[in-house]
Amino acid sequence: MSSFKSNALRGTFFLVFGLGWSVKYPLKYLSRKLNADNQASRWIQKLDILEGAAKAFLAIAGMLAEQFIPDGSHMGLYSGGTYSWEKLTNWQYTTMYLFYGLSGIVDVLAYSPLKLSLGLDRLLLSVAMFTEGFLFCFHDYNNTALDQHLHSLLLIAIFGGALCALMEVFLRDHTILEFFRTSFFILQGSWFWQIGFVLSPPWGGPGWDQTDRGNFNFLTMCFFWHYAAALLVTAANSVFSYWYVVGRGSGIQTCIYSAILSGSDERGG
Amino acid sequence: MSSFKSNALRGTFFLVFGLGWSVKYPLKYLSRKLNADNQASRWIQKLDILEGAAKAFLAIAGMLAEQFIPDGSHMGLYSGGTYSWEKLTNWQYTTMYLFYGLSGIVDVLAYSPLKLSLGLDRLLLSVAMFTEGFLFCFHDYNNTALDQHLHSLLLIAIFGGALCALMEVFLRDHTILEFFRTSFFILQGSWFWQIGFVLSPPWGGPGWDQTDRGNFNFLTMCFFWHYAAALLVTAANSVFSYWYVVGRGSGIQTCIYSAILSGSDERGG
Amino acid sequence: MSSFKSNALRGTFFLVFGLGWSVKYPLKYLSRKLNADNQASRWIQKLDILEGAAKAFLAIAGMLAEQFIPDGSHMGLYSGGTYSWEKLTNWQYTTMYLFYGLSGIVDVLAYSPLKLSLGLDRLLLSVAMFTEGFLFCFHDYNNTALDQHLHSLLLIAIFGGALCALMEVFLRDHTILEFFRTSFFILQGSWFWQIGFVLSPPWGGPGWDQTDRGNFNFLTMCFFWHYAAALLVTAANSVFSYWYVVGRGSGIQTCIYSAILSGSDERGG
Amino acid sequence: MSSFKSNALRGTFFLVFGLGWSVKYPLKYLSRKLNADNQASRWIQKLDILEGAAKAFLAIAGMLAEQFIPDGSHMGLYSGGTYSWEKLTNWQYTTMYLFYGLSGIVDVLAYSPLKLSLGLDRLLLSVAMFTEGFLFCFHDYNNTALDQHLHSLLLIAIFGGALCALMEVFLRDHTILEFFRTSFFILQGSWFWQIGFVLSPPWGGPGWDQTDRGNFNFLTMCFFWHYAAALLVTAANSVFSYWYVVGRGSGIQTCIYSAILSGSDERGG
Repeated sequence: MSSFKSNALRGTFFLVFGLGWSVKYPLKYLSRKLNADNQASRWIQKLDILEGAAKAFLAIAGMLAEQFIPDGSHMGLYSGGTYSWEKLTNWQYTTMYLFYGLSGIVDVLAYSPLKLSLGLDRLLLSVAMFTEGFLFCFHDYNNTALDQHLHSLLLIAIFGGALCALMEVFLRDHTILEFFRTSFFILQGSWFWQIGFVLSPPWGGPGWDQTDRGNFNFLTMCFFWHYAAALLVTAANSVFSYWYVVGRGSGIQTCIYSAILSGSDERGG
Repeated sequence: MSSFKSNALRGTFFLVFGLGWSVKYPLKYLSRKLNADNQASRWIQKLDILEGAAKAFLAIAGMLAEQFIPDGSHMGLYSGGTYSWEKLTNWQYTTMYLFYGLSGIVDVLAYSPLKLSLGLDRLLLSVAMFTEGFLFCFHDYNNTALDQHLHSLLLIAIFGGALCALMEVFLRDHTILEFFRTSFFILQGSWFWQIGFVLSPPWGGPGWDQTDRGNFNFLTMCFFWHYAAALLVTAANSVFSYWYVVGRGSGIQTCIYSAILSGSDERGG
Repeated sequence: MSSFKSNALRGTFFLVFGLGWSVKYPLKYLSRKLNADNQASRWIQKLDILEGAAKAFLAIAGMLAEQFIPDGSHMGLYSGGTYSWEKLTNWQYTTMYLFYGLSGIVDVLAYSPLKLSLGLDRLLLSVAMFTEGFLFCFHDYNNTALDQHLHSLLLIAIFGGALCALMEVFLRDHTILEFFRTSFFILQGSWFWQIGFVLSPPWGGPGWDQTDRGNFNFLTMCFFWHYAAALLVTAANSVFSYWYVVGRGSGIQTCIYSAILSGSDERGG
Repeated sequence: MSSFKSNALRGTFFLVFGLGWSVKYPLKYLSRKLNADNQASRWIQKLDILEGAAKAFLAIAGMLAEQFIPDGSHMGLYSGGTYSWEKLTNWQYTTMYLFYGLSGIVDVLAYSPLKLSLGLDRLLLSVAMFTEGFLFCFHDYNNTALDQHLHSLLLIAIFGGALCALMEVFLRDHTILEFFRTSFFILQGSWFWQIGFVLSPPWGGPGWDQTDRGNFNFLTMCFFWHYAAALLVTAANSVFSYWYVVGRGSGIQTCIYSAILSGSDERGG
């Protein structure tokens, strides 16, 4: 049904952004606090554009992967021979990546001369996450109860992140919301890996027993252990960024800043 | 059960408002920004009254259509002969149009000397959408699972729009909320058309197979493709309005404005 | 199960408050606007205390009625003879009235020298409504589907009102929220009467057919007709209050005010 | 399944914090109001650190108790012999305590020189409560309907408290939210005791009949009686604190303050 590789791909997509944000947001917060001049804001702007471009690029890569991997749908949607829909799961993930792609494009356009309304980038991220969540809600799990249970748990991470992004439309640059959203992305990423290991282990063999109630209870707990780990990773990265920029003395800090900001110094300063 | 024509009528009702708003709100935003004088606000006021009147008129037209089309209820609600309720689906849509009619009347009254509380127009719109949503929630689908699935998806658009309108009671003239609500209205309109094509195709023949699980999965995806299209249409109309008013140089812009505002110039200026 | 009289009693309780508020809130709004001096606020304060006392008194009356009507529970909760709980429905409504009583007491105490936190009165009203809603949620309807459907619809009015009151904790004296809450109370009152007529008509005979799907669909619609009526009544009372105080010229208005405020004039002025 | 002792332990954990807060928050509010100098804030800061440490300590104690009581899991999770998960209920409560422990650690760190974002402590409390709630939601009750009903009711208290804590992230030091959260904690504590008495009475014998519908209805009501009691206890403690600090005259009040603040006077003053 869902192979290990495609779950790992999805997991990596979310982990990359989650871990990236767990470093970016503390740095953004600190640069704002330390640099009164507008060097920091120029550097964050560049990072935002880069992030949007990466999101759009990875989403397109994901769409192509879902379509053109050996057991992908190869752009075929309806089989005239059997009068039935084909490879709908691959198309579903393509749809999911499509919305993340739109979100990435809006992230880039937010800095264009088009002057988009402030908050539109967060709204599109929220829309992408809600779309993902509703796709999993309405997905037909063919009576594979454990599969459904794993994705029900995932919904907590998805809708949690979507609500965070929605609130950020109105409360932009709120550190707590950014922290929360980051932890939900890391959780989502690591849980996609877990889903891969449970349903189709990479070392072959069948997945876990779909009927054993113990598996259900253990995986519920396991989901929250993942979340505890996601919180710790986010916190550790925040503390590390804090220590890296502030804690090493104002002399060394200047060196780091000049290194980080060298690109913008050359052109802007 | 639900004929193609009445679904198309409902879809057109929502598409007209969605597409109208996708042009009106960017224009309103731009006129506010460009015109310091109160010409723009007078023009928007006229448009708001017109919109309210159109909403009330279309709602009454919808109510009459539901009652007096050949297979309508013709004001009959209870059949004394069979001791049973008659044509409840038509009455249900009449109720839905009734609330949109009330919303239209309040839109008009908001500019009357009655001095309604600011935000009452948005509240009534929200009430109309929640009423529509709950009517679909509690509707009896007679075990036609695909019918129910199509309307469950529609609920996302309805309740999404209702929540937007509810938030606008407190955050009036918020561009993001107006953008979001507009996209939900276009989605609702196009989805009513889709429901018509799926359940009772205009070229005759039965609707889609109510038991094929593939249809369920495809339509779930299809709903989000509709939403992606709705977002693109809303965005394109915004950009087009922006280009039409601002992008063509301040000289030409003055001409356009004098054309748009000529009506209010004659009487007001 | 639930006799006509007790449903009428509950309906009257909510209608009294709903209709009272539909006159009180517009008058409060207008007096604040017209009277710069503190006569109006003193008069509103007296009305608030009176309302709280009436709420507490009616709640106690309701509790006594549920216990000591001929088919009430007479303070008996557990039957030692049959080893079973007795008259739990009466006890459930007693619990409901208990929370409204607490809300009334806090309304009165809000003006005492105890200096309660502002908003505690609205919070307790919200708690009373949530309690009522959860009691109906978890109520055992003994497989009487129509009974359950009627109370499910009622939940919309209850939770709608509860959310309004909860938001008023943070947005006190918001006219839109007060209008909305008033309309939900009137709806709740009239729907309790409707429940009485449907389940146990006062002219005797059995209630409506519990298995006819037509009844379900009709009552869903009927609930929203009640709400349209509740909105119209609230609006009419607001307009009438406006006309009564403002519309009749400033000369007559002064007379009315001196009549209304005479009580507070004698002591305070 | 769930022994009386472990339910009593959980109940005591929540009661200690609920009752503690019902005294602490009014005192905090009053000290802020009465003491213009920063003595009061220093005293509150100490209490906050103490509370966080107590929370972390009690959470660790709870984790150890769940693991090492005679019928605990003794760190064993998977039985190689029977190829099945072992003692998952104990592990579930260990997970619950883990998140409360994290919350306690963040409470302490909030006053460290790490300069955490304001509101992170409330966020972690909210996360701990949501985790607890979702663990109970997804728990497998093995068709013991009364057990499930008791925990469904508990969810009202858990998610109510979690939403309060979440709102406090944005509206810090809001007295109404603190009052509400306190009452939900007391409710949760007393309801855990009730669950213990219902499912496994300390005087031996089986729990209540799992199939009697009367038990369900009675316990639903009983839950709201617990809440009425929790509200009264919270209110009584608030009034008592008020009377203790303010009501006894400004002369005596000074003495009390000097007694309360003596610790901080010695070092800080």
